Order: sequence, then C-alpha cells, then structure tokens
Amino acid sequence: MIYDLIIIGGGPAGYHAAELSAKAGLKTLLFEKRNVGGVCLNEGCIPSKALLYSAKLYDSAKGGATPYGVTCDNPVLDYAAAVKRKDKVVKKLVSGIEASLKKSGVEIIREQAVIVGRGIPDAPFTINGRNAKHLLICTGSEPILPPIKGIETAMTNREILALTEVPKTLAIIGGGVIGLEMASLFNSAGSKVTVYEMTDKIAGPFDREISDMLQKIYEKKGVTFKLKTAVKDVADLGADKVLASVGRRAVITGMGFESIGIHIEKGAVVTDTQMKTNVPGVFAAGDVNGKSMLAHTAYREAEVAVNTILGKKDCMEYNAIPSVIYTNPEAAGIGETLETAKAKGINAAETKLPMMYSGRFMAENENGEGICKLIWNGDRLIGAHLLGNPASEIISTLSAVLYREMNIEQIKKIIFPHPTAAEIVKEAVFHA
Amino acid sequence: MIYDLIIIGGGPAGYHAAELSAKAGLKTLLFEKRNVGGVCLNEGCIPSKALLYSAKLYDSAKGGATPYGVTCDNPVLDYAAAVKRKDKVVKKLVSGIEASLKKSGVEIIREQAVIVGRGIPDAPFTINGRNAKHLLICTGSEPILPPIKGIETAMTNREILALTEVPKTLAIIGGGVIGLEMASLFNSAGSKVTVYEMTDKIAGPFDREISDMLQKIYEKKGVTFKLKTAVKDVADLGADKVLASVGRRAVITGMGFESIGIHIEKGAVVTDTQMKTNVPGVFAAGDVNGKSMLAHTAYREAEVAVNTILGKKDCMEYNAIPSVIYTNPEAAGIGETLETAKAKGINAAETKLPMMYSGRFMAENENGEGICKLIWNGDRLIGAHLLGNPASEIISTLSAVLYREMNIEQIKKIIFPHPTAAEIVKEAVFHA
Repeated sequence: MIYDLIIIGGGPAGYHAAELSAKAGLKTLLFEKRNVGGVCLNEGCIPSKALLYSAKLYDSAKGGATPYGVTCDNPVLDYAAAVKRKDKVVKKLVSGIEASLKKSGVEIIREQAVIVGRGIPDAPFTINGRNAKHLLICTGSEPILPPIKGIETAMTNREILALTEVPKTLAIIGGGVIGLEMASLFNSAGSKVTVYEMTDKIAGPFDREISDMLQKIYEKKGVTFKLKTAVKDVADLGADKVLASVGRRAVITGMGFESIGIHIEKGAVVTDTQMKTNVPGVFAAGDVNGKSMLAHTAYREAEVAVNTILGKKDCMEYNAIPSVIYTNPEAAGIGETLETAKAKGINAAETKLPMMYSGRFMAENENGEGICKLIWNGDRLIGAHLLGNPASEIISTLSAVLYREMNIEQIKKIIFPHPTAAEIVKEAVFHA
Repeated sequence: MIYDLIIIGGGPAGYHAAELSAKAGLKTLLFEKRNVGGVCLNEGCIPSKALLYSAKLYDSAKGGATPYGVTCDNPVLDYAAAVKRKDKVVKKLVSGIEASLKKSGVEIIREQAVIVGRGIPDAPFTINGRNAKHLLICTGSEPILPPIKGIETAMTNREILALTEVPKTLAIIGGGVIGLEMASLFNSAGSKVTVYEMTDKIAGPFDREISDMLQKIYEKKGVTFKLKTAVKDVADLGADKVLASVGRRAVITGMGFESIGIHIEKGAVVTDTQMKTNVPGVFAAGDVNGKSMLAHTAYREAEVAVNTILGKKDCMEYNAIPSVIYTNPEAAGIGETLETAKAKGINAAETKLPMMYSGRFMAENENGEGICKLIWNGDRLIGAHLLGNPASEIISTLSAVLYREMNIEQIKKIIFPHPTAAEIVKEAVFHA
C-alpha cells in the first residue's frame, strides 16, 4: 500500500493536516499511539480551560459576585465532579476529531511509528511497513524535567490535570503559562500555592508590565511568588504536591528520524517557512520544530505543509501569532513588545490605556485591573498586549489586523460593537 | 464668540465628535441639556449591561454552576444593590467623558439648544446666542410610543432601568433588541415575563434561524412569547409592569431645524455618506439621521463628519456594522444574512456550524446551544451571524474581515488563538 502522505502524530498539527490532506484527495495515513488531539486536547489546553472555568464559577460563588448584588451561602467546589466533567469534555472532543478524520477518509493506525529508512523509488519513506510519497512529522513535545533532586516525584501537566483531589499545598517550579494557569486553578480551588521562577519575572516572554500586574493580582489572591529562585531539591519545597512546568522540548527520539537523516538542531527538527525539512518530501509541523509550541501555530503550520505538498503557494509567517495566559484575568499578546522591538532595532512607540476605558469592561469588572498596550512602528501596528477579560477572544481581531498589516487610519475604520471589552482597542487607537 | 463647530447633543456621536474636533484644533462647543453620554450611557447600553451581568451571576448561583461542580445555598439577587452599582458605573463613565471633553478643550453648555436662523456671514449658524461656522446635529432618538390604549402608563427603557424592585409580572411590547435584553434581565431576576411581538419573529432583522433558537432558549427559561400579536390595550396584559419597546425615532423637533431649512424625510435628518445635510456646513450623525441607530455607528459617523469638516477624505460605509443582542447567550451579526442577500439579488451561500465545534465553547458551555453562520458571495465573506457567548466580542474580528473585504484564503491565514470561542470562525471557514 502506497500513501500520498503519512503523518506521524495526531495532535493539532497532525489531525488538522490529515483532514486537509484527505479532503484534498490525498491518500492519507495517520499514526497515533494514544488518543488523537495530542497533549493540547488530552492533557493541556482543553482540560485546563474546563477546570479553570469551574474555578471561575467557584470564585464567583465564594464572594466574587457580591459587588454585583449577588450572594449565596456555603459555596462548594466538588473538585472530583469538575474533573469528571473535564474528562467528559475531552472525550467528546476526541470523538469529534476521530469522526471528522474518518469522514474525511483518513486512515488511522494506533501504533508507535518508526521510520525504517528509504522505501521504494515512488514512495521513498517506509513506516511500520507502509510506504509514503510524503512524510509529515507532528510528534509534538514533552515536558522538560529540570535537573533537580527528587524531580521524578513531581507532576507534569499530565498528572496535575488528572488529580481528583485538591492538594493542601502546591509548589510550582516554573512561572510560565502552564505554571500560572495551574497556580490560578489551585489557588481558586483552595490550595496554598507557591510559584518558583528562575528569572526575574513571571509569564516568560510576555510584556513585562503585564507580567508584573498579573503577579500582583495573584499575590492579592494569596499566591506566593519566589522569583530569581533556583530550586535544588523538591523536598526543600515542603509541599504536598509539586508541579514541574519549566518548559517543553520536541519529541525527536525513538522514531527513526536518523534513518533518513532528518536534520535536528537545538533538539528540534529544522524546518523552513514551508515546513520542509532537509530531506525532500519530509515536512514537520507543530511543537516538534520548536518554533512556537502553540496549538494554533501547529494548525497553521499543518495548513502550510499540506498546501506545499499540494503545490499551492503558502508560507508560514510568525509575526502575527497570538499567545494567551488563561488566568483570571486573562492576558494575551501578539507581535512585538516595546522591549522586543527595541532589541531588534525597530523604531517603536507605545499607546497604553487602562481597560476601564471600556464601558463594558467597567460594567463587568468591579475594581477590575487591566491594561491595553498597542505597539506602533510609525503608523503601523506591530504589537498588542492585553490584560483583562476576555483578552483571549479580543486578541483575534488584532491577529487579523497584524496579518493584514493595517495602519492606524485603517484600524480606526473597523467598527467595534458598543459596548464591548474589545472596544478598548478602538479607544487606544484614538489615544495614539 | 465664533466657534468652528457647534454640536447639539452629547451622546456617542456628539461627545466623540466634540473630542476629535477639539483635539484637531477646532474651537468646539457642545450643547447638552442632560448628562453627557446620551441614552446609550445613561439609560441604555451601559446600565443594561451592568444589570445583565448581575443577572448572569445570579443565574450561575441559582444552579447554572452545578454542571461545572460548583454549588451553593440560598442564592440572593439584591436587585436594589445591583441597581445602585449600575448607577455608580454610569456615574463613573459620565465623569470620565466629561473629564476627557474638558481635557480636549471642548466647551460644554448645559442648555436646550435652539437654532435661530442664519447668523453672520463667516459663522452662519446661531444657536443660543453663539455663532458657528459648522453645525453638527447629534440629537439622538427617543422611544416610539405605539397607539395603544393606556400606553402612557407603560415604561420605556429609561424607567425600566431605573426600577429598584423586580416586578412579579412584566409584559414587554416589542420583541426587538431592547425587549429581549429586558426579558432576559427580569426573567433571571424572577419576573414572569411575556413578550408581545407584532411580526412573526423576535429580534427584528436578525437572522431568522438564530432568532428562533434564541426564542426557544428563552421559552425553556420560562419567558412566554406571543408572536403576530398586536396589543390593543395595556390593561389587557394584566401585568404589574409594562415595557414599551417597539422602536425608536429621531429627535427632530423643538430645536429650530426648520429655521435653516434642514431637510427631513421619514422623520429623520437626511444625510449623505459624509454626514452632510442639505444645508452646506450642517452635518448630522447618530440616531438622528435614522440610518442605523447604534452607538458604534454614531461614533464612526462622528469621525466621518469631523474628518469632512477638517478636509480629510472619509466616507461612511454601512455594510460592516455589527449588531449585538446581549441576551445569555449573546447573539451578534454583521453584513448580509442569506435572506437579505437573496432579496438584494446577491448570489450567496451559507456555511453553518454549531458553536460546539469550538473546544473552548464546549469547555465553558455545558449543553450550550449556539451556532455560527458565515455568508459568502463567491470566495468573499459578506456576512456573519453568531449565537453563543461571547458573540459580542467575537464579532469584532468579523468586522475587521468585512471592512477589509477579505476572501476565504485570506481569512484562513488569520491565526485565532487556541482554545477560544472565536476559533469557531476558523472552523467554519475550513468547513466552507
């Protein structure tokens, strides 16, 4: 059996590519040893969002609703019930993807795929006895376990999302996106949370002012942050549970990449902007190429890879990729910050406005802190950074704006419905 | 004293125009007899959203949070407290606008303005003893009271938002946006609500399928809808309180429009796409021109009017104006529906997807109903219609897309962050 395309790994890059490929008429085979959906759906983005929503509702019942005239007694978060519901949501979405793949005509094999060297001339790649004309590697990423004594006793994203009880004390090693979302979840659920971060700020590459605001907000909620702190021994933390969330690395071993000489650099498969590797006919999309490690980047890379295989002109652009932290409030950013622009020698200016300039935001956020920052290069928008709900949903508009390289006069003509939190963008543009 | 621009009315069109005009260096005078902010801020969009948010939190406490693992006892909505908070929000926003106008150098006079005919040659318009080179009419709109017996005993948007107690029974005449938002608010707050609507559907010009879905959702919540029903006597309704919300009409009398011969048609000031009236130098923006009766249209019209006065090329486009119903779930639409496109002879096709195709939506909406519809003319998007939270915030992205006249291949390249409800747009585009 010869396939037009064999895909290794059924996460966001893999399943999206498989569906697009099969729909376009390519004979497509997908290898996935676990559930389709990858880390994102099974033990990442989706389960965390389901649990964070339960936590948000619990915060509201615990007194968050009082300023709005709503009170109640004996608020309870049945954490096991929330986890059960989360599992149901994940199961539904996994089934949905499976059904969609089947409907598109994708063949799925539930095996660990191993490339065993070059096959026949017309289909040069052999994987588990199948031959393919093209190969797309979507093997994703796994948590990095830092060299800390006792780290093997720590949880990763997988184990923490499977907990059915709320730990009394939780130590989080790494104050990036995953660390902060789990700090938010378990702080709301009742844990005493401490976040240990090596660098001098939380939230990784997020805008520094927004990171600092977010830290202060969570300190007020009772989370302790230890910045510039290297943990040496898990036992020193004295916590019931410990989460290791210091970063992720591409999964590149045990699948015979070396058998066809795929070029690896800094622990990731090297790709160009069409997702081509050094081996003609072999592509890589998603976390495995180490470029952005976000599901929505993976989707787009999958599209570029499949379009390239189909002979359609397409190309990956990395300058308009939003990123979100699903804390409460949410933070979202896209493009340059003032710092990154300056580091690149780009002439940049900033417009900054409190979220309270949006009437809708004020109506729904009693004493709500939040900020909107727009980064300009002359009259062109090159970055936007938000703290305040629902930043995750607002940032899409800025994604469209950055992708279309709009200037200030064009952005002014976008009509934002009134009243919305998204209007803060319009307000900020008119303050620029 | 001669002004470059006198503006009559300090609602969204008036205050935005005043600020832009003064910032651009024009000597600007604003007449407003009540609070700045107009109907929208003082007795419309903002107070309703503040109260609807309290209602949403109350729904959550009353059992809405249970499927997510969160429960509590004795949920209470202190409606008077919610109203007090709403008043505080409005007051803050009014003060904010006043401060902003002052800072921009706008002069405000708290009087009913009356145009008393042509003034001196260089400043041909005289209003309350002041002369102006240009005049911008932003006198807004007022509720239409239908010819129904006893209608003078009914509330309008103003009185219903000032209620401090929840009526036992509430009859709403008119199932448009205001009627539905008030039905939603008081249904949550505990009233027995009946909506009377003359036509065969609720939600005015909104997509019919979405209107029908919304009706069914509210019927399940306990609201009664009487369609194709003309109320003849308020007393027949047998309700503690009655709201008249059958529509609004431009405010055009008592301000001397006739003294300079401003052309009125169908009860509204006639304007062109630069907001010019028939009288050179006289502009009209916002509800008073009867074109769209939405605050965000008013803002944009204000910009066009001021830019035109400043000699900057600008022009109003009415095909990319979103509209929102702030029910729970929210509905939002922009551009053509399949019906309106067909009526105009536009070749149109529809893509339709349940909101549950968004993982974030599923995570936050247990059994949540919702739909996303995209309307295409060939490969160009000409309309989008959503039911599901937060439709109001998602629609801005579609506003940018329609304004930039993007085609399907361009829309596919916008990167929506994962997971978001906004991603439903991407899903739908890939299903087109």
